[in-house]
Amino acid sequence: MKSLYFDGKELLIKEVPIPIQSKDEVLIKVLMAGICKTDLEIVKGYMGFKGILGHEFVGEVVDAQNKSLIGKRVVGEINCPCYRCSFCLRGMSNHCPNRTVLGIYNRDGVFAEYTTLPEKNLHIVPNGVSDEIAVFTEPVAAGYRILEQVQFNSNDFVVVLGDGRMGQIISQIINPYVRKLVCVGKHSQKMFLLNIYGIDTCLLDYWKDKNVDVVIDVTGNPTAQSFALNMLRPQGTLVIKSTTEQSNSINLSKLVVDEIKIVGSRCGPFEPALKALAEKKVEVEYMISHKFAFEDIINAFEVAQNKDCLKVLIDFRNNKG
Amino acid sequence: MKSLYFDGKELLIKEVPIPIQSKDEVLIKVLMAGICKTDLEIVKGYMGFKGILGHEFVGEVVDAQNKSLIGKRVVGEINCPCYRCSFCLRGMSNHCPNRTVLGIYNRDGVFAEYTTLPEKNLHIVPNGVSDEIAVFTEPVAAGYRILEQVQFNSNDFVVVLGDGRMGQIISQIINPYVRKLVCVGKHSQKMFLLNIYGIDTCLLDYWKDKNVDVVIDVTGNPTAQSFALNMLRPQGTLVIKSTTEQSNSINLSKLVVDEIKIVGSRCGPFEPALKALAEKKVEVEYMISHKFAFEDIINAFEVAQNKDCLKVLIDFRNNKG
Repeated sequence: MKSLYFDGKELLIKEVPIPIQSKDEVLIKVLMAGICKTDLEIVKGYMGFKGILGHEFVGEVVDAQNKSLIGKRVVGEINCPCYRCSFCLRGMSNHCPNRTVLGIYNRDGVFAEYTTLPEKNLHIVPNGVSDEIAVFTEPVAAGYRILEQVQFNSNDFVVVLGDGRMGQIISQIINPYVRKLVCVGKHSQKMFLLNIYGIDTCLLDYWKDKNVDVVIDVTGNPTAQSFALNMLRPQGTLVIKSTTEQSNSINLSKLVVDEIKIVGSRCGPFEPALKALAEKKVEVEYMISHKFAFEDIINAFEVAQNKDCLKVLIDFRNNKG
Repeated sequence: MKSLYFDGKELLIKEVPIPIQSKDEVLIKVLMAGICKTDLEIVKGYMGFKGILGHEFVGEVVDAQNKSLIGKRVVGEINCPCYRCSFCLRGMSNHCPNRTVLGIYNRDGVFAEYTTLPEKNLHIVPNGVSDEIAVFTEPVAAGYRILEQVQFNSNDFVVVLGDGRMGQIISQIINPYVRKLVCVGKHSQKMFLLNIYGIDTCLLDYWKDKNVDVVIDVTGNPTAQSFALNMLRPQGTLVIKSTTEQSNSINLSKLVVDEIKIVGSRCGPFEPALKALAEKKVEVEYMISHKFAFEDIINAFEVAQNKDCLKVLIDFRNNKG
C-alpha cells in the first residue's frame, strides 16, 4: 500500500506492506484523514518520530476478530496503552508509560491506505455524520478534555488565545458554559468564520483586559504564555493545549504573587465529541479549507503550514491503490 | 524611632517619626521580627520597594480605638486590602489590586520600633507561644495556604524541593496528610535538623524517582522548576512557592503531554498556623540560627544570606530607643 513516511528528515511517499493486526487489533481502511499541528511539529523534530505519520482519521473496518465490526465506519483513540501498569490500573491509561501513540510515538499512523488499532480504541461513527465531519472527532475530543480538567463557572470570562482550528473548536465547546468567551488571534480572515457561529473574537493587538478568569492557549506559539499570563486576573487559570518542541520563559513572580494555576491538557473523550458533532453543537465543516487526494499529500503538508489555512483533509476514498 | 530603611539601593539605619495610625489601624510596638527570603529579594530589587522593610513580627498593641486590644501580644496579616473592590467582595482580599503589603508594597514594615496595621489584620498570640515562636506565624500560614489549594490524597508521594526554613515548615505541615514525603535539598546540615522531627530527606544529587504526585518548590531558585517537572508523574502537581524577580524556562511539551498542573501559592491563613505553633504540630524554634539586636540588623542581613543559615531573628525587646 502507499503511505506517507517520515524518515526523521523528510516526508516520502513509500510503498509498504499492508499492516497485519495483532490479536486485539482491527485492520482499518482509511477513508479520510486530517493534517494536525502536531504532524507539522513532528516534521520539525518533535517526538523524534520515524514512520507513517497521521492520527486524525475516519475509516472502515476490513478485518477484526469481532466480525460484527467489519464494514463499520469508525474513528479511533490514538493512545494504545498496556492496560497492566500502575497508571492503566489507576484509570490513567492515556498516560501509560508503555503506550504507543498512533502516528506520533512507536506506532505507524493513518496517512496510508490501511492502519491498525486495538478494538478498544474504536468508536462507531453515527450515520448522520459525514466522513468530512467525523475526521474532526480527535481534535474535538481534545477540546472536551478541558471540560474534564477545569471547573468552569457560569459567571466566568474566558479567552481562547489562538484562532486556528483548535482555537475555533475549543471556543465552540466552552462558550455555552460561561458568561463571556472571546477568541483572540492574529488572523481576521480565520476569526470572521467563527463570528458566524456566534463566537466573539478580537485581534490580539487590540486586547486590553487583564481580568480574565480562564485563558486557554492554543497558539502553538512558545511565547504566547506571557500574553496569556498578563490577561489573567489573580487566581486565574491558564490552560496550555499546544504541544511544541520549544520551552518558554514564564514569569514566576506573577505566577506566585497572583496565585495563578496552569493546567497542561492533551487528549480527550471521544463519545461527547462524536455526540456534539452529530448534534451540530460543534460546527467543523466550515474549517475545511482544502481537500487533497493522497497522491498530493506532500503538497497538502505545505499548504497546511500556511497561517491562514484552517483544516487540510486527505481523501482516500477515490484511491486506486 | 530607629528603623531599617531601604532606599532602593542600600539598607540604612534611619531615625524616623513614630507612625500615626489611621482610624481603622492600631499602633504596635515590635517585640521580635524575622528576616525572610522576600526581604533579601527586595534588597536585590524585587517589587521596587522603598521604605521600612520587614513583615514577619510579633508585637504589643500600644494604641487602638478598640481599647481592649491595648497591651495584647499580636501577630498580623501582611496584606491590607480596600474591602470595596470586586476582588475583596468576592472573598479574594489577599489579591485586592488596591492593597498595600507590610514592608513589601506601599506600606512601611516592621524592622522598626513601632509599626501600624489595620485592626482586622491582627491575631492575638496565645500565652503559651513565645515571641521566638510567634514570629514564625506568617511563614507557617504561607505553608497552610498549600492545604487550601491542593487536595492531597492519603496515598500521595510528595517532594518538598528546598531545605530552607520554608521547605522545613512546609514539610512538617504536609507530612501528616500523605503516604510519603521527602524534603530534597542541597545542604545536609540543614536537612539533618529536619530528620530529628521525623521527616525524610534526600540530597538533590541522589534523587532518581520520577513518579512523584506533588512537588512543592520552595527553593527560590529560578532553575528549580526543571528539576521539579522531571520528578513528577503524569498528571502530577507542581506547587511554586518562591517569589523571585527572575523568570524561568518551562518545558511546555512535558507540561502538556503529561498534563501537569502548576499552582502558584502565596500568603495563607493565620489561625491554623497559630494553632499548629501552640500545639507544637509545627516545630520552628530549632531553625533559629541567629538572634540579633536591632542595632546589628545590617549585619543580620548579611548572615541571613548565608546558604547554611536557617532563620535570623531581630530582637527589639531590650531596645533602649
